Amino acid sequence: MLTIDLNCDMGESYGVYNLGEDKAAMPLVTSANVACGFHASDPDNMMKTVRLAKQNGVAVGAHPSYPDLVGFGRRQMALSNEEIEAAIIYQLGALQGFCQAEGVAMQHVKVHGALYNKAEKDAETSLAIAKAIQKFDPKLIMVCMANSEMTKAAKAIGLPYAEEVFADRAYTAQGALAGRKLPGAVIHDVDEVVARVMKMVQQKTVTTLDGTELPINADTICVHGDTPGAVEMISRIRSALEAAGIQLKAMGSK
Amino acid sequence: MLTIDLNCDMGESYGVYNLGEDKAAMPLVTSANVACGFHASDPDNMMKTVRLAKQNGVAVGAHPSYPDLVGFGRRQMALSNEEIEAAIIYQLGALQGFCQAEGVAMQHVKVHGALYNKAEKDAETSLAIAKAIQKFDPKLIMVCMANSEMTKAAKAIGLPYAEEVFADRAYTAQGALAGRKLPGAVIHDVDEVVARVMKMVQQKTVTTLDGTELPINADTICVHGDTPGAVEMISRIRSALEAAGIQLKAMGSK
Amino acid sequence: MLTIDLNCDMGESYGVYNLGEDKAAMPLVTSANVACGFHASDPDNMMKTVRLAKQNGVAVGAHPSYPDLVGFGRRQMALSNEEIEAAIIYQLGALQGFCQAEGVAMQHVKVHGALYNKAEKDAETSLAIAKAIQKFDPKLIMVCMANSEMTKAAKAIGLPYAEEVFADRAYTAQGALAGRKLPGAVIHDVDEVVARVMKMVQQKTVTTLDGTELPINADTICVHGDTPGAVEMISRIRSALEAAGIQLKAMGSK
Amino acid sequence: MLTIDLNCDMGESYGVYNLGEDKAAMPLVTSANVACGFHASDPDNMMKTVRLAKQNGVAVGAHPSYPDLVGFGRRQMALSNEEIEAAIIYQLGALQGFCQAEGVAMQHVKVHGALYNKAEKDAETSLAIAKAIQKFDPKLIMVCMANSEMTKAAKAIGLPYAEEVFADRAYTAQGALAGRKLPGAVIHDVDEVVARVMKMVQQKTVTTLDGTELPINADTICVHGDTPGAVEMISRIRSALEAAGIQLKAMGSK
Repeated sequence: MLTIDLNCDMGESYGVYNLGEDKAAMPLVTSANVACGFHASDPDNMMKTVRLAKQNGVAVGAHPSYPDLVGFGRRQMALSNEEIEAAIIYQLGALQGFCQAEGVAMQHVKVHGALYNKAEKDAETSLAIAKAIQKFDPKLIMVCMANSEMTKAAKAIGLPYAEEVFADRAYTAQGALAGRKLPGAVIHDVDEVVARVMKMVQQKTVTTLDGTELPINADTICVHGDTPGAVEMISRIRSALEAAGIQLKAMGSK
Repeated sequence: MLTIDLNCDMGESYGVYNLGEDKAAMPLVTSANVACGFHASDPDNMMKTVRLAKQNGVAVGAHPSYPDLVGFGRRQMALSNEEIEAAIIYQLGALQGFCQAEGVAMQHVKVHGALYNKAEKDAETSLAIAKAIQKFDPKLIMVCMANSEMTKAAKAIGLPYAEEVFADRAYTAQGALAGRKLPGAVIHDVDEVVARVMKMVQQKTVTTLDGTELPINADTICVHGDTPGAVEMISRIRSALEAAGIQLKAMGSK
Repeated sequence: MLTIDLNCDMGESYGVYNLGEDKAAMPLVTSANVACGFHASDPDNMMKTVRLAKQNGVAVGAHPSYPDLVGFGRRQMALSNEEIEAAIIYQLGALQGFCQAEGVAMQHVKVHGALYNKAEKDAETSLAIAKAIQKFDPKLIMVCMANSEMTKAAKAIGLPYAEEVFADRAYTAQGALAGRKLPGAVIHDVDEVVARVMKMVQQKTVTTLDGTELPINADTICVHGDTPGAVEMISRIRSALEAAGIQLKAMGSK
Repeated sequence: MLTIDLNCDMGESYGVYNLGEDKAAMPLVTSANVACGFHASDPDNMMKTVRLAKQNGVAVGAHPSYPDLVGFGRRQMALSNEEIEAAIIYQLGALQGFCQAEGVAMQHVKVHGALYNKAEKDAETSLAIAKAIQKFDPKLIMVCMANSEMTKAAKAIGLPYAEEVFADRAYTAQGALAGRKLPGAVIHDVDEVVARVMKMVQQKTVTTLDGTELPINADTICVHGDTPGAVEMISRIRSALEAAGIQLKAMGSK
């Protein structure tokens, strides 16, 4: 029986600022990537998010970032590998605090934003991230963009990993995500998104922007919960997967 | 055989900014209170500090604070008990990250600055702190000002604790620390400091500002490593304790 | 002819986080209190907010705060008077930067949140604020809670001021704002809010929580634009004032 | 009569953290580049630094940076031109606040660290900086690395500028600063530094790392005050200039 994980960024509110429809999205996913205070979130919000995940039986993972709150971790920053390592361990630890307080095990790590974009293409950065995770806890699963340097780094050091595909983003012929500004890079049509997801999960292939078929391995699907429309899309993806007899399961329980 | 612990704030540098003579002070103490990024320190510096403690066989503890970097955690802030709880768990977790990465066990928690001053007198704040520590890890030792609300809170919930006395600070008749601005509040004469320490450890009593003898229990002595003079003072205290046959031991190894 | 000013907090978004219905509220008010980066806002958002005010012919003022982004400036912090002075001058200057860039004159200063609450009752804090404003620019108008220590401080040093009343908040018999948690402290009924505003403006009196009539001077009315409902309330207040022949005018143009 | 300006970074302390020998260095220079809170400094420290400059008759300028306190503004960050513009205007304004409070005119702007390094080679970034300064105040002098994109940008939009040379840094044949990690990149020998300065000022030429003579225009010399040794070096440079009959004058008073 086929199984798949749905992962979603969560806990990205900050102080009085709300972001994301966490309460609506949480029951629909199997893994939550919880922001750790560097690009979003704060201690109170992290505590609430871990509790919400626990209540919904959703596996908790860390979503560490460059230290750039005002830029939401979306701007490249030239950190050294040592700085990346320390920043990641700090953020994993901080989330681990709330996991311990709530009696929840941390399952995975998915780096955020510009750090993800850097790691995807840069072997050295991916290795620094994988090593930091392994130093912190060698049983944690690193969420890696499928076919990227991230997967290679996790494999190279024997760190558990899960390959991730994107439900609503177009791929280039090289298997990279098409830049958001390119026409067609973000897919808004729900039926098309669902069809792409089913194909990636069942046939392990994706049609790239230039029309070729690219082999792709999907252990987990990245979905979004920032808007009511996004939540509706998760719901549709979930229903289609269930209808096809594919079991939704947190990546770590496979 | 009498034993005593010497605890010292460590890792309070930040980015390019150096604070404290950590390298000189570390070999002289038995417990290090490591700043966690809210009043001082950053991930790189925390990693280095945990390593330095490990190399010197010094027990590692967390030194959490109000979130006030520019004020060094020395200004009162009206946080709710929930905010205090979350802030402490976040900081304990962050330090725990580096402890895990370095294979070191966290031993204790000593809150910093204005939060310490608040807790000392305020039962509710002390309880919020004690409960946060217990939720995170019920085996951690809470460093409590001797005779204060902190000790009562730790006792009340069954959290391990160590009572702390101050080597170079004067006490009021009520057992509180005399405010730093009062004449005689900070004792600079090394011989006098050493004599007071010996009396607190051996006779379990301290002479207060108004001349009365106050019973006091010293599980750990707070020393400072911010200046070359301060490091020299630790060295003198240490020698006097050793000369009297008192064993220096981390609070958790008693 | 009677004139009145409507002031509203603006520019309280931060990075990706949106707060407030600035675009809807701006055309309805006469003075905008622009956040300066300490409790909310960031440089990009301040620039946009000053431009939006300019486009709408709304007068620009600064809305400085304690340095507490995660707490939105709503938590008391024990700053010294020198720290308050420096924090205010820094924030006024930062906003002045965008005013200069856009060719707009800064009109007023209204302190935010916990700093406002402190100043309202504390003569020393009010004086520190008033002096900081005067040092920066002695022609700026200090927005003062009517009947409070703020007004006294501005008067004492000869700083221009405007007395502020609150459209939707209940007053105690002493003329203070009733704490938000008291029943009836925040008035949600639009008709009642409008009636209270009209009475404060036309009769210079307000009915307090215990039913007495308190004399009150309203140079400017504090309105809110954080929710669609709040914007609708501004619109209703504005219409009622205009229908009564009261001219809406920025406080500095009187 | 030849004149020259000596500019030095100042006010880079933060909270309890001290950096730089400002009190010793200030009387020796003619222009102070005051940190504005993004890579270093805080409101209290900026106020003190502007006062110290005023007391010593030293001209005040802003030293704006990327928003990266923990990295001291030394790490590249991918800000958009709009973000650079807004960040610069915010910081210029903040310093302007203290200038107004102290009755001092702001003279110049010198961008800091990684932003300087970016601007030096990148025309677009230099133009964004120059335009931001001009929007804020078209009379401000932009300090530009001699022979760099910065100078071209200031010229292109008609912004006043001063070309800067470095006393203790080696130049490549292309006129760029040699990277700090290259052998010989930082010159520690005081006599050699003094000789290079004299040659740049009097002969308008500098010997590059590969031995060629590069024409260079020096309106202002960048000196450092971070260590006692650095202060001594300023003193030696100053004496040599004075002995040669070259007048030390703030760049804006020429």
